[in-house]
Amino acid sequence: MSEIYRASTTAPVNIAVIKYWGKRDPKLNLPTNSSLSVTLAQSDLRTHTTASCSSSYPAEDSLLLNGSPQDVSGARTQACFRELRALRKDLENKDNGLPKLSELPLKIVSENNFPTAAGLASSAAGFAALVRAIANLYELPSSPTELSRIARQGSGSACRSLFGGYVGWEQGREADGSDSKAFQVAPASHWPNMRAVILVVSAAKKGVSSTTGMQTTVATSSLFAARANETVPRRMQEMQKAIQEKDFETFAKVTMMDSNSFHATCLDTYPPIFYLNDVSRAAIKIVESINAAAGKIIAAYTFDAGPNAVVYYLQENEKEVAGLFKSILGEKEGWAGERGQAVSANDEARDKVAVDNAVAVGLLEEGVIRVILTGVGEGPIKTEESLISEKGEPVSK
Amino acid sequence: MSEIYRASTTAPVNIAVIKYWGKRDPKLNLPTNSSLSVTLAQSDLRTHTTASCSSSYPAEDSLLLNGSPQDVSGARTQACFRELRALRKDLENKDNGLPKLSELPLKIVSENNFPTAAGLASSAAGFAALVRAIANLYELPSSPTELSRIARQGSGSACRSLFGGYVGWEQGREADGSDSKAFQVAPASHWPNMRAVILVVSAAKKGVSSTTGMQTTVATSSLFAARANETVPRRMQEMQKAIQEKDFETFAKVTMMDSNSFHATCLDTYPPIFYLNDVSRAAIKIVESINAAAGKIIAAYTFDAGPNAVVYYLQENEKEVAGLFKSILGEKEGWAGERGQAVSANDEARDKVAVDNAVAVGLLEEGVIRVILTGVGEGPIKTEESLISEKGEPVSK
Repeated sequence: MSEIYRASTTAPVNIAVIKYWGKRDPKLNLPTNSSLSVTLAQSDLRTHTTASCSSSYPAEDSLLLNGSPQDVSGARTQACFRELRALRKDLENKDNGLPKLSELPLKIVSENNFPTAAGLASSAAGFAALVRAIANLYELPSSPTELSRIARQGSGSACRSLFGGYVGWEQGREADGSDSKAFQVAPASHWPNMRAVILVVSAAKKGVSSTTGMQTTVATSSLFAARANETVPRRMQEMQKAIQEKDFETFAKVTMMDSNSFHATCLDTYPPIFYLNDVSRAAIKIVESINAAAGKIIAAYTFDAGPNAVVYYLQENEKEVAGLFKSILGEKEGWAGERGQAVSANDEARDKVAVDNAVAVGLLEEGVIRVILTGVGEGPIKTEESLISEKGEPVSK
Repeated sequence: MSEIYRASTTAPVNIAVIKYWGKRDPKLNLPTNSSLSVTLAQSDLRTHTTASCSSSYPAEDSLLLNGSPQDVSGARTQACFRELRALRKDLENKDNGLPKLSELPLKIVSENNFPTAAGLASSAAGFAALVRAIANLYELPSSPTELSRIARQGSGSACRSLFGGYVGWEQGREADGSDSKAFQVAPASHWPNMRAVILVVSAAKKGVSSTTGMQTTVATSSLFAARANETVPRRMQEMQKAIQEKDFETFAKVTMMDSNSFHATCLDTYPPIFYLNDVSRAAIKIVESINAAAGKIIAAYTFDAGPNAVVYYLQENEKEVAGLFKSILGEKEGWAGERGQAVSANDEARDKVAVDNAVAVGLLEEGVIRVILTGVGEGPIKTEESLISEKGEPVSK
């Protein structure tokens, strides 16, 4: 029986604080502006992927995600496979003793540890894990930055999930995308007390897909160019400095302003794109009231292409931020884990907030379906836990 | 007994299709960009004002609005009184035979024919009527454009209510505001079949006032400059051409894009300003579905600093636009009048729209409290109907 080659990794989700929105090259996923994100802890949110190849496998490459076969014929997945095989081929050409893995069919098995229904951008973790697992399988010497160039072609924001901590994605200038890559602004250990509470909001209907949406924005928004060419370059500098100096107030303010700027260009799209709903706006109101009560900025909201709120805060303010949300949303799913149990509910703060924000509190109670507590975390981690057996079969977990 | 001088006028509401948002001089109400509006018919929405003066009146100027005494000591009202008295004074200086009205106390009585609770910007009609009534009282030879410069100091958008039809407000360049005036793009008779249905939406809470809001936008939005300096000047040209050519599709598209652009800069303000809510967004969805069903643009939404939707359409498409809203909102107040009765409900269209937009239809049913049917109309009209009796007392109507 022919050999089964296997390698496994986990990869994290990241949530941008300077948003990626707009492609200058849709095929290569080259962005119109740089972006910056916080990598979230894999204990809370991660994709686990095993990549495997063997001459005994069916000729077609395959991908199983959470037990369901996925279409791998799309240009994005194909681009990742092609680029990784080319790098392996280079190694094989230089060293005749290496097995010709680049010529074997791939079998990939992936699992997310978070509910797909949460509407969290799982494609970033997914493509980062896919690329990292195949790179491990092929024993590529490529750096995370080099791999980020490949993962970017699968899903733009996936390039940022190749690193832990605080991660930038340089838009680059080259037509071939060779300089459009991720880089680490700071490791998680530099500012380890960054936390996030995610308020998962039920959406009546899936909004416009980000791929379609961002191209319509580029084509029709008259305000978009100012964001891409002026606002974001300035904020990229401010944000990197804030992270280096662990200046939470600046980090938070730029995070909120950039989320608002991104959603403003969505609204300025024709026809307009709305990702925020009344529940999202209620979350903004509550964050504003948390900061007003604190007399300084201790919480920052940000929203991706959907109504879910991600609220960043520092561990030392957990009671004022996560504790307040626990008092409002304690009945929802998500508080049972270790992180959730550690949060002290803050009924006093809730009662104060409710005086002026009863409508917002009610909207959150009504519209939030679960919370996820997490924090800054590490990049992809190699694991021996394989989702494919020695015989080449998916392992049911 | 000393003589009681009286003069009366009515003045219209206007709803902008290119929005005024941002002041370059808050004291003089000088805007950061030009704007353009449609004057609405006074049969549906108007302020009726009588201005009066007499040596027998108490020494303090006074204003009664809908039966309630108003504070006239504010800088805006004072500016209007001062400018109008100065013009009268000039006449008196040139003609010694004229009574010295400029030296007499003013008594002003105003009434709106629409519910204040509707949240419609009544200050435009109010200041236009106030200025026009005093100008009539003083028998000033000033043109509407000259008076618009004065009304602007009361409330920016009031300057556009000095004209009927389609009205521009040139932002001007001078520091003293002497060139920041309204002008008529076209009279109502040029394109008389323009209609509007206003969906009055209940707001849980009054949003940020426009005076405060627009200054925060100017100070904090990084996208605002692009709107004021590039987007609006281009759209002012496009809109004037569309009106001259009675090109509804362009008129409508620019109207919708400009409303979205304005609200986008509100969202890009820090802290963000939200005037649109889920009900407003439902109105946008329904307008989009009306246009999709027609295969061309026959309806245009626009939103001022609040959640109310104003939907412009042409008389020939009444059944497709107002008729659809009648089928959805027939139970609400506002259909009893002549215009409302003339609208044919369009249950067929509603049933079609409801298939893909059940949530939006439900939100409208829930959130719209009344409708107002109107259309393009005339500017201020002099009237003999006085709200002040020959003896100088308010007439109760």
